[in-house]
Amino acid sequence: MEPLYEIPNELKRLRASIDNCDAALVHILAERFRCTDAVSFLKADHHMPASDFKREKEQIVRWRCLAEESGLNPDLAEAFLKLLIQYATRHHEEVAAQAVIRNS
Amino acid sequence: MEPLYEIPNELKRLRASIDNCDAALVHILAERFRCTDAVSFLKADHHMPASDFKREKEQIVRWRCLAEESGLNPDLAEAFLKLLIQYATRHHEEVAAQAVIRNS
Repeated sequence: MEPLYEIPNELKRLRASIDNCDAALVHILAERFRCTDAVSFLKADHHMPASDFKREKEQIVRWRCLAEESGLNPDLAEAFLKLLIQYATRHHEEVAAQAVIRNS
Repeated sequence: MEPLYEIPNELKRLRASIDNCDAALVHILAERFRCTDAVSFLKADHHMPASDFKREKEQIVRWRCLAEESGLNPDLAEAFLKLLIQYATRHHEEVAAQAVIRNS
């Protein structure tokens, strides 16, 4: 079905830029989670807690500073970081639980 | 206060990589929101609806494909995209509401 309105060419151009940003975002997210997955195994091996609140606070401050510098809404940046931390922490906990089962 | 455990060097290395990914993520997010902010004004000018569900569905499919290709959890990719769409749509609505006030 055709859209109800004609999409202006400028919108097409902006969407092409958004799609390019998205491809970059997905690939960098993939790399970030490769790193945090490795952290999961390292923490499990060393019996370290899944969360490190000092590190999380530092990350929030850093993300908000980077956001200010680059013109991104710092609250939005913090919301994204918290989603990332939530998923990473969940993975740390899962890997630690599996290690306990393996070693029991 | 010093941490209760000594941080292994490998954890330090992984965190340095995570920090590099984060700097890239923030800057690409900033660029993406520059584009979606421009979309907000374009949509308001053309009296277009804030949401485009056909486009959103295409984006979800694309993000999940890119995630599969790059080894990122597709559910996580979709959650991240939905947060991006939520913030962008809210901005489209705010800009449209301001345009209505200006023109009334």
